[in-house]
Amino acid sequence: MTHPLFTKHEAMLDKALSAIETRGYWSPFAEMPSPKVYGETANADGEAAFTAHLGKTFELDQPSTGDVVGEERSPFGTSLDIKYPKADPDALVRASQQAQQQWRAAGPQAWVGVSLEILSRLNRASFEIGYSVMHTTGQAFMMAFQAGGPHAQDRALEAVVYAWDQLRRIPAQAHWEKPQGKNPPLAMQKRFTIVPRGTGLVLGCCTFPTWNGYPGLFADLATGNTVIVKPHPGAILPLAITVRIAREVLREAGFDPNVVTLLATAPNDGALVQQLAVRPEIKLIDFTGSTQNGTWLERNAHQAQVFTEKAGVNQIVIDSVDDMKAAARNIAFSLALYSGQMCTAPQNIYVPRDGIRTADGQLSFDDVAKTLAGAVEKLTSDPARAVELTGAIQNEGIAARIAEARKVGDVLLDSRTLQHPAFPEARILTPLLLKLDARTDEAKFTKEWFGPIAFVVATDSTARSLDLAGSIAQEHGALTLSVYSTDDAVIDSAHEAAIRGGVALSINLTGGVFVNQSAAFSDFHGTGANPAANAALADAAFVADRFRVVQSRMHVAPEAVAAKAGQTA
Amino acid sequence: MTHPLFTKHEAMLDKALSAIETRGYWSPFAEMPSPKVYGETANADGEAAFTAHLGKTFELDQPSTGDVVGEERSPFGTSLDIKYPKADPDALVRASQQAQQQWRAAGPQAWVGVSLEILSRLNRASFEIGYSVMHTTGQAFMMAFQAGGPHAQDRALEAVVYAWDQLRRIPAQAHWEKPQGKNPPLAMQKRFTIVPRGTGLVLGCCTFPTWNGYPGLFADLATGNTVIVKPHPGAILPLAITVRIAREVLREAGFDPNVVTLLATAPNDGALVQQLAVRPEIKLIDFTGSTQNGTWLERNAHQAQVFTEKAGVNQIVIDSVDDMKAAARNIAFSLALYSGQMCTAPQNIYVPRDGIRTADGQLSFDDVAKTLAGAVEKLTSDPARAVELTGAIQNEGIAARIAEARKVGDVLLDSRTLQHPAFPEARILTPLLLKLDARTDEAKFTKEWFGPIAFVVATDSTARSLDLAGSIAQEHGALTLSVYSTDDAVIDSAHEAAIRGGVALSINLTGGVFVNQSAAFSDFHGTGANPAANAALADAAFVADRFRVVQSRMHVAPEAVAAKAGQTA
Repeated sequence: MTHPLFTKHEAMLDKALSAIETRGYWSPFAEMPSPKVYGETANADGEAAFTAHLGKTFELDQPSTGDVVGEERSPFGTSLDIKYPKADPDALVRASQQAQQQWRAAGPQAWVGVSLEILSRLNRASFEIGYSVMHTTGQAFMMAFQAGGPHAQDRALEAVVYAWDQLRRIPAQAHWEKPQGKNPPLAMQKRFTIVPRGTGLVLGCCTFPTWNGYPGLFADLATGNTVIVKPHPGAILPLAITVRIAREVLREAGFDPNVVTLLATAPNDGALVQQLAVRPEIKLIDFTGSTQNGTWLERNAHQAQVFTEKAGVNQIVIDSVDDMKAAARNIAFSLALYSGQMCTAPQNIYVPRDGIRTADGQLSFDDVAKTLAGAVEKLTSDPARAVELTGAIQNEGIAARIAEARKVGDVLLDSRTLQHPAFPEARILTPLLLKLDARTDEAKFTKEWFGPIAFVVATDSTARSLDLAGSIAQEHGALTLSVYSTDDAVIDSAHEAAIRGGVALSINLTGGVFVNQSAAFSDFHGTGANPAANAALADAAFVADRFRVVQSRMHVAPEAVAAKAGQTA
Repeated sequence: MTHPLFTKHEAMLDKALSAIETRGYWSPFAEMPSPKVYGETANADGEAAFTAHLGKTFELDQPSTGDVVGEERSPFGTSLDIKYPKADPDALVRASQQAQQQWRAAGPQAWVGVSLEILSRLNRASFEIGYSVMHTTGQAFMMAFQAGGPHAQDRALEAVVYAWDQLRRIPAQAHWEKPQGKNPPLAMQKRFTIVPRGTGLVLGCCTFPTWNGYPGLFADLATGNTVIVKPHPGAILPLAITVRIAREVLREAGFDPNVVTLLATAPNDGALVQQLAVRPEIKLIDFTGSTQNGTWLERNAHQAQVFTEKAGVNQIVIDSVDDMKAAARNIAFSLALYSGQMCTAPQNIYVPRDGIRTADGQLSFDDVAKTLAGAVEKLTSDPARAVELTGAIQNEGIAARIAEARKVGDVLLDSRTLQHPAFPEARILTPLLLKLDARTDEAKFTKEWFGPIAFVVATDSTARSLDLAGSIAQEHGALTLSVYSTDDAVIDSAHEAAIRGGVALSINLTGGVFVNQSAAFSDFHGTGANPAANAALADAAFVADRFRVVQSRMHVAPEAVAAKAGQTA
């Protein structure tokens, strides 16, 4: 049963097993785009590989209608003009089913070995994928490289190792021997076969196509399922490259490459996705996107295990700080990073209307708000530096949302258009900061305003802030909660609010860690305990139901039992 | 965090952990109702305890309307006349929610320790529970004792140990330290808190109230959830005793006993159950019963994790045998055991119309059918002995189904009424065996005929038999599949059919193991891979999503990092 690709990557797998047990820092994939690690020409080669896709039809030798599809546009304003082979969903499902039998029979070590080999090839393609992520999502290059490359690979490996950690617990066979008093024991030989669910469907998003898409893809693969990858129509390329690499590895390893296929679509593919999602062959769905679409899947795709990450309202509670400027710098970074287009970016910042205690004395609400606005302003004042942080706005809908948001409260800091030094047509908008009041504006801040939009909300007290934080997380969903306090009792209350809201808590972040960052192998991304996500990346629950066990049992011949007894006697 | 009850039972837990890894034979609970194990007066005491319930109101100090409810009738014809305190579901949900906070905070070792203490007390009550199971389900005493007592306790322990196996993998805290080149590392202290889902609802069945009810109950408890137990209106007593014992243990351990409550109901409680099942507080549902009710829950209780065991069509494929009589004896036992009222009992027996090979030469289809019928007839010929095997028919619906079934095919062996020597009013009916043809009767045998009803089905070939077995399991559900063949290639094909149908396979059972038996810690009961059950008893998937993890993280002060570095340097 040992597969050469399993053996090849077993040392990495063992380290990953240890990492998910201790949950300290670990990553096998270098996050810095360093020539020393990735090769002197890796950046140039990766950019060239990306550029070579532009204006072309992406080649993929999978079932196709012969037509092409694809309307991606770079948020940095450059033209992509990439076409992808159009696939008939029925044909992909058929191909996926056909590929399933051989893939299923290969067994856990082959699934895990092939998954890890795909990952190591993806790692080598990190620059090409980084540029592709940049020019589909609008992330600045450094983030596109890191989040789209090594960090996404980390999350994928995490899913693989969680899968393996469960798979390895099922023995391939067992000897069962039940004493029967003075009579010979009843003895049976049992066989346990891991049976994957079938075909998985991975529905990508337009902001983190690989980071959010890989966990489902690799959890499916590592548990023996075949996968149809349907990227968001706005961010196809990173997943198309991924699928191509996966297919190469599969083919080289002697498998039908249709174990992984790509379903590229034109915008407004909702009806197509819904039709596909309820097909009886689709047994697993991993979705990142809107609450509306995610909830539809949860309620209608009854034949499938459905894993969703949806909208949420991330919150910061400021109670008291030693150094407001340090806190504000950290928060401003979180607001500006990729222009708030992270599912983990904070939106609501609660500050008591009577102000907060600091090491330098009491600071009024307005002064706190001003310090926050000032920090964001400072961070975004130099366009050339700012754009490397903010990146570009992924789509026009987000830009329109900023305009809409401007009307709902007093503007503390207006959103500005920045000029990108390298990409004159880039859609770049700095964060909008508004002032709201918890007494009167709750309806405004209990929904997600996806994008660079944040509210400084005046509350009656920190107790009220924490109350809001817990209940909004519970009711409307949240992936992150952050608290600033010098008071241990408040930190304890924040823990309680986090537990009530089912949301991960960050405490007093003033340094080089930001609330929107989630480290694989250590931080659970999402809890599955509030409406923002029905699963966590990654844990046992994320993988354990992607496969089942079918057993057989037969009597062991009496002489075999006797022989065995003789051996042990 | 160590709880005295955890320490008390830790040795048993460790053995159970090892059992689910090796899946050999193991049980800490003696299955024989032996005075040596359970005490010289255990049987008499248990019977007296059971008898003491008759004609009384069952005392339970939980929220009650003041009214009573309960209309159980013994299938052995004796009157039970037990009333239970009636509860307002709203009041139980409120009490459950209130009990949740303290229970949640107690943590994994307390949850597991208390669960194991409840189990050891239940074990001591095995005779009382055995008689209660007997006189609600109709099982003969030996089976009621074993399946309702120690075997149910095994399944409960299995759920607890699977829960613990997952819980123990989440570290309570972690030190995360990320190198920053020449700069000091980023260091964070992380805390991981296990957060139970909330309140679970366990919906019992009338044939195996404890065996099928315990896994969900104990999986919920061991992961920190509170539980409302709603027995089938026809089999309340075994679960009422269980709840009372659980509440005693909880109270003694200093917890609010409303962590476990009983919702006793009158017959036709469907509307009440549906209303309760979709309440937002109900986060987990464990159901055993009809496909109609189970599917309703899966499709409507979106707020909950829903685990269901529903109807199925269990099948036997006879291809060839050494000794048809030995095979027939084994099959007859499976048909007669508790009058086929087991979810694992076989229904369809496929035999090639051209007959089968045996060590004594070819045997015609009719001879195979006759041998099977003869074996059942022999097994049920002596009423006094037969009733200890068949028990009684749980309800009139099953008796009516036998009458209905009699019309659908040629009768190979008619169902007879037996007189129970001790219970003259007992409802006892022997198995009905019919002959059907796969070419013309498929609509008749692709549905479940719950009760002592089985079909010997003529097929064109063993290949066709296996084809039917796999596709019927896949489409209509099945918990068991059994094959008889002396041909290794057929056994291989049977494995393939079992995998296609997602059903556990037993091969050539001719001795003391029967297809309807499923041994905890070794046999997975159900696969979750066909419509008969969406989960298996028990595995990681059965427990891993009953809790979530909420984490917090904060910077470790630079001096602490330095001190740590000093220690390791």
